[in-house]
Amino acid sequence: MASPAVSYARGNQQRFLNELKDLLRIPSISTLDEHKSDVQKAADFVAAELRRIGLDNVESIPTKGHPLVYAEWLHAPGKPTVLMYAHYDVQPPDPLNEWISPPFEPAERNQNVYARGAVDDKGQLWMEVKALESLMQGGGGKLPINVKVLFEGEEEVGGESITEYVLKQKTKLKADFALVCDTELFAANLPTLCVGLRGLVYTEIEAVGPKTDLHSGVYGGAAPNPLFALIEIISQLKDAKGKILIPGFYQGVKAPSQAELKTWKRLPFKEEHYRKTEVGSTVLTGEPGYSVLYRTWARPTLEVHGIPGGFTAPGAKTVIPARAAAKVSMRLVPNQNADDVLNKFKKFVKKLTPKGIQTSIKVWSRGPACVVGTDNPYILAATEALRDVFKKDTVFIRSGGSIPIVTDFQDVLKIPSVMMGFGLPDDNLHAPNEKFHIPNFYRGIESICVFFEKLGGK
Amino acid sequence: MASPAVSYARGNQQRFLNELKDLLRIPSISTLDEHKSDVQKAADFVAAELRRIGLDNVESIPTKGHPLVYAEWLHAPGKPTVLMYAHYDVQPPDPLNEWISPPFEPAERNQNVYARGAVDDKGQLWMEVKALESLMQGGGGKLPINVKVLFEGEEEVGGESITEYVLKQKTKLKADFALVCDTELFAANLPTLCVGLRGLVYTEIEAVGPKTDLHSGVYGGAAPNPLFALIEIISQLKDAKGKILIPGFYQGVKAPSQAELKTWKRLPFKEEHYRKTEVGSTVLTGEPGYSVLYRTWARPTLEVHGIPGGFTAPGAKTVIPARAAAKVSMRLVPNQNADDVLNKFKKFVKKLTPKGIQTSIKVWSRGPACVVGTDNPYILAATEALRDVFKKDTVFIRSGGSIPIVTDFQDVLKIPSVMMGFGLPDDNLHAPNEKFHIPNFYRGIESICVFFEKLGGK
Repeated sequence: MASPAVSYARGNQQRFLNELKDLLRIPSISTLDEHKSDVQKAADFVAAELRRIGLDNVESIPTKGHPLVYAEWLHAPGKPTVLMYAHYDVQPPDPLNEWISPPFEPAERNQNVYARGAVDDKGQLWMEVKALESLMQGGGGKLPINVKVLFEGEEEVGGESITEYVLKQKTKLKADFALVCDTELFAANLPTLCVGLRGLVYTEIEAVGPKTDLHSGVYGGAAPNPLFALIEIISQLKDAKGKILIPGFYQGVKAPSQAELKTWKRLPFKEEHYRKTEVGSTVLTGEPGYSVLYRTWARPTLEVHGIPGGFTAPGAKTVIPARAAAKVSMRLVPNQNADDVLNKFKKFVKKLTPKGIQTSIKVWSRGPACVVGTDNPYILAATEALRDVFKKDTVFIRSGGSIPIVTDFQDVLKIPSVMMGFGLPDDNLHAPNEKFHIPNFYRGIESICVFFEKLGGK
Repeated sequence: MASPAVSYARGNQQRFLNELKDLLRIPSISTLDEHKSDVQKAADFVAAELRRIGLDNVESIPTKGHPLVYAEWLHAPGKPTVLMYAHYDVQPPDPLNEWISPPFEPAERNQNVYARGAVDDKGQLWMEVKALESLMQGGGGKLPINVKVLFEGEEEVGGESITEYVLKQKTKLKADFALVCDTELFAANLPTLCVGLRGLVYTEIEAVGPKTDLHSGVYGGAAPNPLFALIEIISQLKDAKGKILIPGFYQGVKAPSQAELKTWKRLPFKEEHYRKTEVGSTVLTGEPGYSVLYRTWARPTLEVHGIPGGFTAPGAKTVIPARAAAKVSMRLVPNQNADDVLNKFKKFVKKLTPKGIQTSIKVWSRGPACVVGTDNPYILAATEALRDVFKKDTVFIRSGGSIPIVTDFQDVLKIPSVMMGFGLPDDNLHAPNEKFHIPNFYRGIESICVFFEKLGGK
């Protein structure tokens, strides 16, 4: 038997979808200055709706960048408090000519709504808002648990303002757990919870050799070359099989449990399909003895992203540059300590630096891995809610990437995040023809309703 | 006793210098479109003077870029024919605020003339013209040898037009040797001939991995990274001591003669001064067991000049790029074959390419080393001429760089070049406050007069 909230959601699906389309029509592209007022417009649209459905203290909080939207409802004493997160800004729509229908004119085809931001993340934000409306209506003006809402408009440009806000407003944002709706199902119709993210240490090794750029004809053979030095250093950080050679690097690495590994093996994952359609290389690479999912979700890695310096335009210039740099990052897994890894990295780079060259290391970002146990009460309730809605067992996955806000919630607010997302692997995030599968929009709303009802003890 | 030509040159020094200043006032910056007419103006200035002093068939030859200036005098049957080379274009003068006097308003200080192009190469071009005038005047309207003149206006932008012209006009340019005045003395008052240049093979290794740029969080551990592949490959091309590891690379390498090595040891070269003032690094590097001059003049080297690809702007982007490239060059010495070296390089890079990556190699330029024996009759005559003028023994040096036109003369016209230059190591080529030491301008004119007189049998 559907709860009153779920019944209400089912009865209002078409209106919910129409409202989402209105939100999708606002081109809230956070990275483009000329769309600054559109980002504000989207924030106002969302804030007005939170107010209309009955939340308290709704505010649009100005920042150095785009506004945050906050709202709360705290009238369920003794019940848990959730901090609900999503973002209302979107990626630019280029290349425009590859869109079948215009990016900011939502169109329906094959049970999908096509528009920039459909799934990332306006559709999932609106799921959260519409779940709150349904719960409020189904509960006679009351929610089953306490709710704090914090939506941002800078996710696609680094999310600096929300990080600052979380650091400053620990008390205001105090909650028992966060709900983050910005991820996807592992496969269509497969209820999925993401319970782990890798951490990240992103550095830039700067190398200095001669006092000025030199002619490689005149000085080649006597002058140290910072670019070659970086190559020498980085080639010794990782072997050809993907094993990282920094002394002590793997210290603390915690393997996933046997149970978790077993569930990964049951996931509908076809390596050859993944190689062909997602990576597109002739073979996949990485540490022998680990599956692709293990390697990308639960093994640390080291990558080079760019090597600024010297001459990189078309043609030939025979320069030995005075300086060069290399962007090198490491993905971390539980229970590696980011500071510890960084120190070991720094020490090893220093040791590998050849004579005649000075290196220094700039740190662009650093954060540990995030993992939530599948026996965590919020994960348990979410698991049950998804099973109820999808009529299927929930799968637990991890992601190899990092979601900075989840790290902030873990490190600053000390709360776990329930990453419950309803996108699909082929939803074209950040690409032309982004879409959201409409049945998933509806199932998302119902799942959140049931999830909160379970936590509220109904 | 000075010859009539040398006496004439001495009697006209001030006029010659004034004319050079007029040429220096023309801002013939070949790389800047807005100065195209100035480059033409400089060509016309030079052509007019060649006509005035009595050369035949003077022409300003239009090209796709800037004009070539040709002239000849071929009335010395049975005598050798020289092909005289210099260039009348100059580098841009930036940064302007570091010039003590404006770059195109020649100023005299401490027996130097300061201006852009003073030594590189208008001053040395004008030496050639004024030597011809002096010889013509001193010889009663006759020159001691046959003369062909070929001046270019694209040396600072690659010299493409003269290379094409040489290829097309082999018969017209037929000569016994070339005189190239675009180099420098090893030290002040030390008569110098450059008798060797290193060759160059300049390549770009292109590496392709995934079909598109990938997120290093999501795909790190499974997707091949073209940047890391390049690092792996290049790190295996050369060891930490500078030894190149390409199989067969050193095949054919001919060491300088014991006599040449002995003369290098007598050159006024101070390694510590060179390290501090020229290179500016904490130590010098390169193959153990070879002197700095040996390493930079007569040992092959391998350098990396730039690694385009991935993310190189300030900040952090977690990308595994679909493709990346590396500009890698090798300097060659006698008797390495450029094609042979290139083939060995290609084969080795292919062998080192890790799985999942495809590499291909683009060749930006390739040419062998150039060396002239010190027993060559033209070098012998030049040596004697310099000794007569400087009252000192001539030193023979090499240069680690390549001068493409010298390679063209060697490979296409099959003639050796006498590289007789009168610049000084501190003349600020390509930098603010470029200068030419005025006594060297005069000695250059006299040296060319005596050189040609000796070849003419006077």
